[in-house]
Amino acid sequence: MRILVVNPNRIAACTRLIRDTAQAAAAPGTEITAVHPDDGPVELSGDREVLLSAMGVLAQVDRHAERADAVIMAGFGEPGREAVRASTRAPVFDITECAPAVALTLGRDYAVVTSTPAAVPVVEDRLRALGLGARCTGTHATGLGVPDMVAHPAAALETVIATAASAEGEVVVLGCGGMAGMAAEVARATGRPVVEGVAAAVTLAQATAAVVPVR
Amino acid sequence: MRILVVNPNRIAACTRLIRDTAQAAAAPGTEITAVHPDDGPVELSGDREVLLSAMGVLAQVDRHAERADAVIMAGFGEPGREAVRASTRAPVFDITECAPAVALTLGRDYAVVTSTPAAVPVVEDRLRALGLGARCTGTHATGLGVPDMVAHPAAALETVIATAASAEGEVVVLGCGGMAGMAAEVARATGRPVVEGVAAAVTLAQATAAVVPVR
Amino acid sequence: MRILVVNPNRIAACTRLIRDTAQAAAAPGTEITAVHPDDGPVELSGDREVLLSAMGVLAQVDRHAERADAVIMAGFGEPGREAVRASTRAPVFDITECAPAVALTLGRDYAVVTSTPAAVPVVEDRLRALGLGARCTGTHATGLGVPDMVAHPAAALETVIATAASAEGEVVVLGCGGMAGMAAEVARATGRPVVEGVAAAVTLAQATAAVVPVR
Amino acid sequence: MRILVVNPNRIAACTRLIRDTAQAAAAPGTEITAVHPDDGPVELSGDREVLLSAMGVLAQVDRHAERADAVIMAGFGEPGREAVRASTRAPVFDITECAPAVALTLGRDYAVVTSTPAAVPVVEDRLRALGLGARCTGTHATGLGVPDMVAHPAAALETVIATAASAEGEVVVLGCGGMAGMAAEVARATGRPVVEGVAAAVTLAQATAAVVPVR
Amino acid sequence: MRILVVNPNRIAACTRLIRDTAQAAAAPGTEITAVHPDDGPVELSGDREVLLSAMGVLAQVDRHAERADAVIMAGFGEPGREAVRASTRAPVFDITECAPAVALTLGRDYAVVTSTPAAVPVVEDRLRALGLGARCTGTHATGLGVPDMVAHPAAALETVIATAASAEGEVVVLGCGGMAGMAAEVARATGRPVVEGVAAAVTLAQATAAVVPVR
Amino acid sequence: MRILVVNPNRIAACTRLIRDTAQAAAAPGTEITAVHPDDGPVELSGDREVLLSAMGVLAQVDRHAERADAVIMAGFGEPGREAVRASTRAPVFDITECAPAVALTLGRDYAVVTSTPAAVPVVEDRLRALGLGARCTGTHATGLGVPDMVAHPAAALETVIATAASAEGEVVVLGCGGMAGMAAEVARATGRPVVEGVAAAVTLAQATAAVVPVR
Repeated sequence: MRILVVNPNRIAACTRLIRDTAQAAAAPGTEITAVHPDDGPVELSGDREVLLSAMGVLAQVDRHAERADAVIMAGFGEPGREAVRASTRAPVFDITECAPAVALTLGRDYAVVTSTPAAVPVVEDRLRALGLGARCTGTHATGLGVPDMVAHPAAALETVIATAASAEGEVVVLGCGGMAGMAAEVARATGRPVVEGVAAAVTLAQATAAVVPVR
Repeated sequence: MRILVVNPNRIAACTRLIRDTAQAAAAPGTEITAVHPDDGPVELSGDREVLLSAMGVLAQVDRHAERADAVIMAGFGEPGREAVRASTRAPVFDITECAPAVALTLGRDYAVVTSTPAAVPVVEDRLRALGLGARCTGTHATGLGVPDMVAHPAAALETVIATAASAEGEVVVLGCGGMAGMAAEVARATGRPVVEGVAAAVTLAQATAAVVPVR
Repeated sequence: MRILVVNPNRIAACTRLIRDTAQAAAAPGTEITAVHPDDGPVELSGDREVLLSAMGVLAQVDRHAERADAVIMAGFGEPGREAVRASTRAPVFDITECAPAVALTLGRDYAVVTSTPAAVPVVEDRLRALGLGARCTGTHATGLGVPDMVAHPAAALETVIATAASAEGEVVVLGCGGMAGMAAEVARATGRPVVEGVAAAVTLAQATAAVVPVR
Repeated sequence: MRILVVNPNRIAACTRLIRDTAQAAAAPGTEITAVHPDDGPVELSGDREVLLSAMGVLAQVDRHAERADAVIMAGFGEPGREAVRASTRAPVFDITECAPAVALTLGRDYAVVTSTPAAVPVVEDRLRALGLGARCTGTHATGLGVPDMVAHPAAALETVIATAASAEGEVVVLGCGGMAGMAAEVARATGRPVVEGVAAAVTLAQATAAVVPVR
Repeated sequence: MRILVVNPNRIAACTRLIRDTAQAAAAPGTEITAVHPDDGPVELSGDREVLLSAMGVLAQVDRHAERADAVIMAGFGEPGREAVRASTRAPVFDITECAPAVALTLGRDYAVVTSTPAAVPVVEDRLRALGLGARCTGTHATGLGVPDMVAHPAAALETVIATAASAEGEVVVLGCGGMAGMAAEVARATGRPVVEGVAAAVTLAQATAAVVPVR
Repeated sequence: MRILVVNPNRIAACTRLIRDTAQAAAAPGTEITAVHPDDGPVELSGDREVLLSAMGVLAQVDRHAERADAVIMAGFGEPGREAVRASTRAPVFDITECAPAVALTLGRDYAVVTSTPAAVPVVEDRLRALGLGARCTGTHATGLGVPDMVAHPAAALETVIATAASAEGEVVVLGCGGMAGMAAEVARATGRPVVEGVAAAVTLAQATAAVVPVR
C-alpha cells in the first residue's frame, strides 16, 4: 500500500518526523511518501498561514496522489479536507478527524493538547464543525510552535507531558503534527491512552482499505 | 493478537457469521474467538432482551477475556460498554461506536441501516448518548430481525441494499451484527463506502494495539 | 395504591431508608414495598456494579411487580429503565428522571448533589441522554458512598449540606438513594427548594395514576 | 390546600372547564379558585394578545395569591412565569412546563397537540427556552381556537383525537387550556398515555407541597 | 426616516441618553423620538418589573408607532418583541438581537457586559432563546443598576471598562440601555470592537429600510 | 467610504451585478471596487473550486485592500473569512454571516435559497460552524449555477421566486452572489422580507464604520 502524507508546514524536520511516525505505524511493506508544500508559509502561525498552506497541500496532492492508495492530511485543525477529497480518487484521512474518532472508542472523553494559544480556537471550531466535540473536555496549548518542538524535542516532550497531565479526560489526543512520535512517552508519563493523529490516520487508512468496500 | 468477539444474541449462525467477518478483517495470524451468552434471550427483540443480553455478554467477558488482547462487543446499540470496560484489562471496542467513528472519516455524513423498527430508537438514543449523532442522517430499519437474516441471507441482502439505497448520506453504516459480511455487496450496489461494525472494530482494535500506547 | 420501590444496592439500611421516605411521601393508605436485589453487588461502586445491579432490579420487578400499581427505580443514574418498562404493565418511575422533572418546575436551574466522584460522569451521561440536562448547573460529589452515609447519617447530612450550599442553582436535587430523608434539613440549611428522588417519584406515581389516563 | 388557577383567556366557559379539571385532579378537600383577567383580550389569537394576557394574569395573582398555597398558570406557551414567581410567595406551576415534565417520566418521547397553527411556533419556542424540547417529537395544531372548542366540545374532541392519533410519540401532551377534561377520552381512543396540563400542574403542586421542602 | 425608540425603564436621564445615542448613530435628517412608559416600574430591578415594563412599552408603541418607519426596543433582554411586532406595521428592532447580530460579523466570539447580577440569567435565557448564544463567551455584570449609571457616569464608565477588560471574547457587547454612549471609550480602553445596542439597532433599522424589500 | 467587494467566482457579469447591487445599497459618495480572482476556477462548482477561489480572493485582498475602509466577501458559504481578516486592517464582512445576522432581526426564522444542490451542504456546514443555524428552517437549491443565472436572468428570477415561495420561514435569505439584485422582486412575489447578502454586507459595513468604535 502506498500512502501519501502531506505536512502543511514547510519545516523539513517536521516532515521527516511525520514520515517516521507514519512508517512506524504502518504495516510492513507500506510505502510512505511524506511531502510538504513547495511554497507558502514555513510555519502555520495564524489564520492566513493556515489557509495558504491548504493551497500548498492541494498542490502536493495534485502532484503526488495519483499513485497513492490513501492520502493523509497531517495538520491538526487544517482546512481543505473537502477540497482534497474532490481532487483525488484515493481516500483522504485528516488527522483532525482520525485522532478524535479513535479516541472516542477508547474512553469516556478526551482532551486535546495542541501547540500555541492561537491554535486553540482553530482546533475547537474545527472539532465542532466536524461534530466530534461532544466528548472533548478541552483544547490545551503547550505554548510551543512546531519550530520550537523540532529544535528542542526533549524540552518539548516535557512540556507536552505537563500539559497532558493537567488536562482532564480519560484519553489524550496529541493535536499537532509536531507531536508525532511522542505518544508512547506521554502515555507512560500520564498513565492514559494517547492518540497521535498521524499514527491514527495511517492505521485508519490501512484498516479502511482492508474492510470498507468503496464502489 | 487474540481478539474476543461477543455476539449479544444466542443465534449460532450469527455468531459464526460474526467470527468469519472478524477473521476476514483481521491481520494474518490473529486468533478470533467468537462467543455468545450461555443463557438469556435468543433474539434481541426488545428493551428487556437487550438488557438481559448485556448480562450474558458480561459473563462471557468474565470467562474469556483474560487471555484476550482486545474485546469486541458485536451488538449495535448494545448497552454495557462501561461495565465491560470495568471488567477487563483488555481494551474494549463497541461496534456502535467503531462503525460511526470510521464512517466519520470517510464522508460528510452517514446513514445507519438497522434491523427492526424497534431497534431504531435504541440505536438513535445510543448514538446521541455517545456524541456521535451530529453527522448521522438517519437510522433506517429493514424490517428483518437477525433470525430472518441468517435464515434467508440472499433475500436479506436485497432488502439491506434497497434500504441503504434509499437512505441519504455519503457513507452507509450497517448497524446490526446480522449484517456482518454484507459490506462488499452493499457497497457495489449503492456505489458508496459501507462500514460494517465488526470489521471496523477489528481493524480499530488492531490499529490501536499498534499505535495507541496505553499506560 | 401499591407501589414497588426497588433499591439497586443491597444495603438493607438504605432500603429501609428508601421505604420510609417513600411511605412518608405517599398518600395515606398507600402500600409501599421496598426491595433490593437478592444477589449481585452490595454497593454500586463502579460501572460494572451498576450494570449488574440492573439485573437484580429486573429480577425483583419480575417477582414483585405483578401486584404493584407502580414501580419506582430508586437508583440515581441507574440504567435499565426501558427494560423494566418492557417487563411490567405497571408504570415505571426512575428517580433519575423524576427528580429533575420536578426540579424544572420549581426554578430556573438546578444542581445535583451525588455520592462519589465516580458517580458524576454516570449521572451526567444519563441526564444528557434523557434530555434533562439543559438547565442543570452541575453534578457535585460529596465523596461519601452509601455505606458511609447510612453508617454516619449526621456527618453525611452535614457534608451533603455543605456540598449543596456551595453549588450554584435555584433548586437542589439530591441525586443518590442514600440521601432519601435528607431533603427537609438540606432545604432549611440552604434556603432553597430541595428535590429528593424517591419522594418525587412516589408523588409523580400517585399523581399520574390519578390524572394520566393510560389506554 | 388552596390552589389559585389563572386562565389567561377571558372565556368563562374555558375557566369553568379548567376549574372542574383542576378540582377533579386535586386531593379531596382542596379548594380550587379559578379566575381569568378582568380586562385584556378575550381570546389569545396572536403574539400581542398573549403578552397582554400575561398582564391580566399578573393582576389576578396580585389580587388572589396571598391566600393561595400554590398558583397554576393555565395557558400553554404563556409568558410571564418568572414575573409571576417574583410576585408571590406561593410556588408557581406553569402548565407549559408541568405537562412535558410529567410526560418525560412516562415514555421515550411525547407529542404536543395544540390549538391553532399560530400557537405552534409560540409553543415550540417556549419548550426550547425551557430546555424541555429534546424528547418532543413535534407540536401539532388542531386548527381550533378555544371559542370553537368550548362551543362545540364533541366535534373538538374528535379533532383532538384525530390530531393526536396521527402524531408520533409514546405520550401525548394536550397543549391548550381548552383541552382540559379531554385526557381520558383521548387516551382511550389513541391507546397512549395522555398528559393534560392543568391536571399535571395540580398534581405537581400537591406533590411538591408534600415532599419538596422550601426554606 | 422617523425612528421610535422605546426605553423600557422610566428614568428620564436614561431615555435622553438613549435618544442622543440613537441620534448620533442615525443618518442626517433622521427624526428620533425616544419615549418611555407612562407608568409601571421606574427601574427594571427584577423579573416582575421586566414584564410590567413590556406592557408600558407596548402602550408607547400603540400611541407613537403609527408615524414611525421603524421601532427600536431599547431594553437588553426585554421580552415582548413578538407582541410589539404584532402591534405595528413598522419593522421592530430589539437591541438584544441587533447587538449580537452585529457582533457576530466582527469577530470570532463576543462577551456581554450587563448591569446587575439579576440581569445575567435574563440575558442568557434570552440569547439562547433567540439562537444567538453559540458564540457568546459569557455575560458579565458590572453590579451597577441604571440609576447608578446615570447618576455617576464617570465611575460607571470605569466599571464597565474594567468588566469588559476582564471578559474573554474578541468583541464586546454593551448589554444595557444605560451604557448607550459608552462604546467609544470602552473600545479605546480595551482595544476591542465594542457594539452598543441602541446604535446597532438604529443602523440596522436604517440599513434594512434601504435594502430589505418588505412586501 | 471605500469598500472592496470580492466575488469569488470569475464570471465578469456576476462581478458587475455584485458591484451594482453594492453601489445601490451604499450611501451616496461610497466608492465601490468590485473584483474577482485573476486565476483559479471560473465557476465554483465543487469543494475544490471553492477552496481554490479562496486563494484568489486572498490575492485580491492583498492587492486592493490597503486603500479600502471595508472588505466584503461576496461568496455565500465561502471559506477563508479568518484568513482574510488576518490579511487586512480593514474590517471584513462575509455575506454568509451578514445576511443571516440581518434576517435574524427581521423575523422568527429564515430560509436560505441557494444555487445548486452541491452548495446545500457547504452552506449548511458553514451556518452551523458560524453558530447562525438555530433559526434557519432549511437551505433550498434552485438547481441553477451562476452562469445560468447571469445568462438567463428572467428565468432565473422565476425559479428563485418559486423556490423561495415553497420554503417555510418568515424571512428569505438569497444565499448566492448570483442573486444580487433580485431581492425586491422576490419580496414582492412572496410577500416576505428578503435579505440579499451583498446589500446586507454593504449596509453592515457602513453601519459598523459609523457606530462600532474599533480601537
